[in-house]
Amino acid sequence: MIKTDILIIGAGPTGLFTVFEAGLLKLKCHLIDALPQPGGQCSEIYPKKPIYDIPAFPEILAGDLVGNLMAQIKPFEPGFTLGERAETLDRQEDGSYVVTTNKGTEHHAPVVVIAGGLGSFEPRKPPIDTIADFEDVGVSYMVKDPEVYRNKKVLIAGGGDSALDWAIFLANVAAEVTLVHRRNEFRGALDSVEKAAELAKLGKIKLVTEAQVTKLYGDAHLEAVLIKHNDAALGETYLEVDDFIPLFGLSPKLGPLGNWGLEIHKNAIKVNNAKDYQTNLPGVFAIGDVNTYEGKLKLILSGFHEAAVMCQYAYQIINPGKRYVMKYTTVGGVEGFDGTKKVAKKEVVQAIS
Amino acid sequence: MIKTDILIIGAGPTGLFTVFEAGLLKLKCHLIDALPQPGGQCSEIYPKKPIYDIPAFPEILAGDLVGNLMAQIKPFEPGFTLGERAETLDRQEDGSYVVTTNKGTEHHAPVVVIAGGLGSFEPRKPPIDTIADFEDVGVSYMVKDPEVYRNKKVLIAGGGDSALDWAIFLANVAAEVTLVHRRNEFRGALDSVEKAAELAKLGKIKLVTEAQVTKLYGDAHLEAVLIKHNDAALGETYLEVDDFIPLFGLSPKLGPLGNWGLEIHKNAIKVNNAKDYQTNLPGVFAIGDVNTYEGKLKLILSGFHEAAVMCQYAYQIINPGKRYVMKYTTVGGVEGFDGTKKVAKKEVVQAIS
Repeated sequence: MIKTDILIIGAGPTGLFTVFEAGLLKLKCHLIDALPQPGGQCSEIYPKKPIYDIPAFPEILAGDLVGNLMAQIKPFEPGFTLGERAETLDRQEDGSYVVTTNKGTEHHAPVVVIAGGLGSFEPRKPPIDTIADFEDVGVSYMVKDPEVYRNKKVLIAGGGDSALDWAIFLANVAAEVTLVHRRNEFRGALDSVEKAAELAKLGKIKLVTEAQVTKLYGDAHLEAVLIKHNDAALGETYLEVDDFIPLFGLSPKLGPLGNWGLEIHKNAIKVNNAKDYQTNLPGVFAIGDVNTYEGKLKLILSGFHEAAVMCQYAYQIINPGKRYVMKYTTVGGVEGFDGTKKVAKKEVVQAIS
Repeated sequence: MIKTDILIIGAGPTGLFTVFEAGLLKLKCHLIDALPQPGGQCSEIYPKKPIYDIPAFPEILAGDLVGNLMAQIKPFEPGFTLGERAETLDRQEDGSYVVTTNKGTEHHAPVVVIAGGLGSFEPRKPPIDTIADFEDVGVSYMVKDPEVYRNKKVLIAGGGDSALDWAIFLANVAAEVTLVHRRNEFRGALDSVEKAAELAKLGKIKLVTEAQVTKLYGDAHLEAVLIKHNDAALGETYLEVDDFIPLFGLSPKLGPLGNWGLEIHKNAIKVNNAKDYQTNLPGVFAIGDVNTYEGKLKLILSGFHEAAVMCQYAYQIINPGKRYVMKYTTVGGVEGFDGTKKVAKKEVVQAIS
C-alpha cells in the first residue's frame, strides 16, 4: 500500500504543480496517471506545440512546460504510479481514502485531488474480435518502455504523430519495424514525416499503406497478424510479429471516476469555487479541466490557482487545528524534502568609505 | 480624455497579464500606476530578487517576470499613464466610469479593474518642514526620467538599494552626485554596494554619511540644502544643489481608492470570488493582492487566474448579448492589435513512400 499526504489523480500540468504548492506546506504527494509519462495531454498529444497563454511565457512548447514543472517539483520528491488507471475510491472509517488502480495498486491518503483533465485518455482500439485476448501478451496501445521491444519484430498501426514517432524510435531498437496505415498519407509534424520517409527508404521501417490488420494469431502470446489490403488485387498478407501496437489516438473519458459518487455536471465534477474546490465528498477535491463551477475557464493557469487554494484546505484536513502562516517564496525561500534549499540572496549591510 | 475598453489601475504583474487576457477577447486596455514604470513592487522594490512560486519557473527574478509579461502583452498595445495616482472614480449615466489622476489626467472606460496590489506605494518623506513647497521644483521622491538630472547638481538621501542604484546611475548623467545617509552602513545588494564604493573612491559620487538634510533653501526652485552631521563637532554643511531626491522607501497605502464607495475589509477590496471578482460597484472589478474573499491567497498566480475570469465578464459588459467562444491559444493562435499573429505549426498530410 502506497501512503502519502495528498494523492493526486492525473499527472498533467495542474496535478504536477499541486506537488509544488503542497511541498511548500510540507505535504508529500503521489500521482496516478493512466498515461505512461507525466504531463497529461501536453506530453501525450501535443508536446511540440506552442502554448501562448501561460503567464510570463510569450510562447512555450507544451513539452517544455511539463519539463519546467517537473524541475520545479523535483525537490518535493513526488511518487508516481504511471500507466495505471485509478479505478476505485474507498472511504475509510477515519475519513481517509484508498484508491486502487486497474492493476490492483493500492494508495492510501487523507486527501485525494482529482486533476484528471478531460478524463483518462482511453486508447481507440482497432475492431478486431480477439484483440482483448492478446492485450499485454503482444498487443499494447501505448509504449511504456521501448526496451521491451529490443530485438523483437514489431508492427505499429496508425497514421499520426504517435505512430510515426514510435516507428522512428523503435527502428533502432527492434529487430524489425513494420508500419501499417489504412491510407497512403500520414498526418504529423513535418520533421516526423520526413524522418519516417528517410528510414523507409533505408529499409529500416517497412511501410504497408492502404491496408489494415484484421486478424491476430497466437497461442499464449501473439505470433502473427493478417493484413488486408484495400486493393482487392493485393489480397491479404500474413506477417509474423512478436508485438502489435495500434496507435489510433486517445479519446478522453471520465471513466471510473464517474462511479465514485461525485456530483457530475456535463462530464465534469462539480466543486465549491467560492471556497476550496472541494467536491461533494469531504476530502476529495477536483481541480483543473476536470472540474466545473460558474464561470469555469478550462485554462492551465486556472488549474494552477485552484491547486494553490486547494492545498491550503488540504493542510487543514491533514493538520487539524494547526495554523499555517504563508510566507512568500521570495522571503522564505523553498526547502525541498531532498535537503535542497533555495533562498533569495540577502542584502548586505556594509560601510562604503 | 483617454478612452479604452478596460481601465486597469495598477501595472503590477496582475494588471499587466490582464492586458493579455483582454487582448484575446479583442478588448483594449489602458493602465494607470503611481510608480514611474510598469511592474509594481516587482520592478520597484525587488527587481533582482528571485521568485520561486511562479508556475513553470523553478526560479525567476522579479524584474524578468515583468519583462516577460511586457513581451507577452506587447501585441495588444496597452496604453500607460505612469507616475500618476488614480484619484477619483466617477460613475457616468450610462454606467461607464471616468477615473482622474492626481495630475488631472482623465480616463474613460465601461469597465474598471483595480489591480492595485498592496495599494499605491507612497514615498516615505523626510521630516523637513518646508519640503512640500519644493515638491516638483527640486524635490522628488522617485526618479521618473533620469535625463531630467543631466548636468545638474543632485543630492540623493537614503541607505538602501534605490539610493545606491540611482547614485550609481546618475554618476554618469549629473554634473555632481552627493549621497547622504544618516548611518555609515548601507543596506543593499552586494554588487550595488561594491559599485557605489568604487565610484566614491573615484570621486564620481560624493559620500556624506552619519548626516541628514535638515533645511531646504530656494525661491521658485530649490537652490541649496543644509546637512547636519551626527557628530556635533562637524556641525552643519551648506551645499548648493539643483535637485534633492530622498529615497527612504515606499509604504503601501490603499490611498484614494478607500473613498470610492468600495466595500473594504482589512485594507482590501471585497469581491465575489464565486463568480467574477466584481466589487460592490457594478463594472468595477478587483483582482490580485488588493482584493479579498474567503480563502484569498496573495499569490501572483492567483492574480493571473482572477484576471482571466474577470475579463470574460468584462466582455459581457462591453459586448452585451454577444457570445464569445473561447479557443485555446494552441488551437486558435494569438492575434495582436499590431497586426502580428502567432499560431502553432499545422500538421502536414503527406505520403511517405
